[in-house]
Amino acid sequence: MQIIFYLCQILDPPEKYSYTFIMKKLLILAVLLQLSLASFAQQALGRGQNMISPEVNPDNSVTFRLNAPKAEKVQITGDFLTSQTPSDLTKGDDGVWEFKTPAPLKPELYSYSFLVDGLKSTDPNNVYLIRDVATVTNVFLVGGGRADLYKVNDVAHGTVSRRWYSSPTLKMTRRMTIYTPAGYEADNKRYPVLYLLHGMGGDEEAWISLGRATQIMDNLVAQGKAKPMIVVMPNGNASQEAAPGESALGLYKPTSQLPKTMEGSIEESFPDVVNFIDSNYRTVKAKSGRAIAGLSMGGFHAYHISKQYPDMFDYVGLFSAAIMSERENQSPVYQDSEAKLKTQFAKNPKLYWIAIGKTDFLYKGNEDYRKLLDAKGYKYTYYESEEGHLWKNWRIYLSEFAPLLFN
Amino acid sequence: MQIIFYLCQILDPPEKYSYTFIMKKLLILAVLLQLSLASFAQQALGRGQNMISPEVNPDNSVTFRLNAPKAEKVQITGDFLTSQTPSDLTKGDDGVWEFKTPAPLKPELYSYSFLVDGLKSTDPNNVYLIRDVATVTNVFLVGGGRADLYKVNDVAHGTVSRRWYSSPTLKMTRRMTIYTPAGYEADNKRYPVLYLLHGMGGDEEAWISLGRATQIMDNLVAQGKAKPMIVVMPNGNASQEAAPGESALGLYKPTSQLPKTMEGSIEESFPDVVNFIDSNYRTVKAKSGRAIAGLSMGGFHAYHISKQYPDMFDYVGLFSAAIMSERENQSPVYQDSEAKLKTQFAKNPKLYWIAIGKTDFLYKGNEDYRKLLDAKGYKYTYYESEEGHLWKNWRIYLSEFAPLLFN
Repeated sequence: MQIIFYLCQILDPPEKYSYTFIMKKLLILAVLLQLSLASFAQQALGRGQNMISPEVNPDNSVTFRLNAPKAEKVQITGDFLTSQTPSDLTKGDDGVWEFKTPAPLKPELYSYSFLVDGLKSTDPNNVYLIRDVATVTNVFLVGGGRADLYKVNDVAHGTVSRRWYSSPTLKMTRRMTIYTPAGYEADNKRYPVLYLLHGMGGDEEAWISLGRATQIMDNLVAQGKAKPMIVVMPNGNASQEAAPGESALGLYKPTSQLPKTMEGSIEESFPDVVNFIDSNYRTVKAKSGRAIAGLSMGGFHAYHISKQYPDMFDYVGLFSAAIMSERENQSPVYQDSEAKLKTQFAKNPKLYWIAIGKTDFLYKGNEDYRKLLDAKGYKYTYYESEEGHLWKNWRIYLSEFAPLLFN
Repeated sequence: MQIIFYLCQILDPPEKYSYTFIMKKLLILAVLLQLSLASFAQQALGRGQNMISPEVNPDNSVTFRLNAPKAEKVQITGDFLTSQTPSDLTKGDDGVWEFKTPAPLKPELYSYSFLVDGLKSTDPNNVYLIRDVATVTNVFLVGGGRADLYKVNDVAHGTVSRRWYSSPTLKMTRRMTIYTPAGYEADNKRYPVLYLLHGMGGDEEAWISLGRATQIMDNLVAQGKAKPMIVVMPNGNASQEAAPGESALGLYKPTSQLPKTMEGSIEESFPDVVNFIDSNYRTVKAKSGRAIAGLSMGGFHAYHISKQYPDMFDYVGLFSAAIMSERENQSPVYQDSEAKLKTQFAKNPKLYWIAIGKTDFLYKGNEDYRKLLDAKGYKYTYYESEEGHLWKNWRIYLSEFAPLLFN
């Protein structure tokens, strides 16, 4: 834009512009052109492709494009497809392959990859990528409905910090992600805290990237649907100091098969996290000002942590939780579950919220757990969604759970 | 690991384990297996490839691998290659292509892409990617020497925050990245501040990702080579609220051709940034506690800002700066440069540091500028490196410049 402005000045100069002046302008133009291309040419190793992909059309159908003239077959795979089978792109005369969804897509954050002659490839025209454990995929967002909560909107934004804390129990310095709501820094109020836990293979980056936690909280607070709150996203793998690439282990290949994930360490060390937050932020230092929720393995952690420390959390959220009754041999945390649950529910938590999708492979375990709660007369709220063990559902659960907190 | 532990328990059960106990264990094993695979299978759209790439060998040669049995030609391009021509990978009998660098690589953070039958592709085995304007490339790090500053080491870590501030001058709410050094939150000291500016096409994410600013500062401070300082990385495009994808503009395709980058707005509004930081952090609120540095366009900004506000910064760093004398028609900021420089240098800045690479396309402009400074007798320090307009150089310049500050 600036360059075009210059070009116009040069091509249509008012009379007052001298020859020298125009030559100087041309020199500046040359420098500006080089500046804007320099990082591309020297660092980015190729200009990518000058096209838009994916393109969300006005009717919410989506068109994907890939310039691959030498490819024999290009397919696309992604969670927007109605079947598990990849869809074929069609090659145009110019070597550009294209695929348009046969119908408009529902509002959602979607992920996809191309398969170029069978090789999984990212879309060179889409810089938006999210890592899930050891795989990186492109994402796009179809707005509208609930998915507007996942967008960055023109509202007041909270602060997101990556911060290290000391865990005396684990004898480690560890990294966490902390969201403080808009206004936190400008006032002197105390804020309640939601502790939000990831699943197996995840880390302190999972909720902020795949979970769109920043956007969901910013938007819910701006709409007056959720109370402003601090959201703390710790790392739930007791063997890890930090997410892959963020610790002294270097740029290693991530795995979901980590030691010390569901054997008691995270639960035993959780007061270290709460103490750190209560010591470093203006929190409501009381059960009434604390919520804990987690997805999958994080739901397992939230389940055990909340009953292990029955005076710590007034709000509990189990999102597609990996409820497994038989862990007694692993850690004191897993012993005497029924007695601990009795104590926890005798103290009347304000909300005990269980959510799961109809086709989740953990459905049966959750159903059995609800039967146990029913049999004991322990009060809980149940939210059942479509589909299974998916980030789509965990974003829905967060956006349903957060408005219920701290009222 | 945990799953293997379970498997061993099941396959070699002590006598005390009953049939029921073993069956329960098997059930838990099945759940754990599903948990650890669930996100892969349902979200990540394919398992990627079960191999290591890139592999940094013990002698610092590097091996790249790609499983692409149907490809006819696989090449690699990257800033580790000695020539601009891509190198060919060799196909193995198993369909895995491989390339090993002919010699050990010097310590550095490198970027690369594959070209699969001409199509630029990311490495599916490497989750470490950095965006540069509109292009995303894989990165890897060969440690040793100065590059050890770019690694996450086992040292105390600062906090990195993405935070929004209000700019009354630009009438916008804008996003910045702020590094506070280890210990900042735990003490009551005041800290000096380095304002660190990006180049054309960059944004508030550039220094923290491509620039490895967190790692460089953590490591320099831990080694006692730099004073603990706050590092503020604002967005230098006056038309942008935030980096691509982080504003209400949505997930659009980034461009380096932005309006309002070098026409005075950033310089005029810079006191908004400094006021925000001085109001929200425990800073040394004095010229002696402030440094400003920038690369390329950010060097241009640092040049103009430091002379426009001659009482604001005692330390100035121009990294491959886009020094262009003739900007007088654009903004009052660019007028009377010589008079402003005279005022600035009459106030004896503690450090005026100019760095550029021998082959940088801006070398001549910087040489001319140094001649001007020499002619006027204005004191500056000059640092000349090999090569050109590259992030490699900007990381070097930061690691050379930061130790000179606030002594």
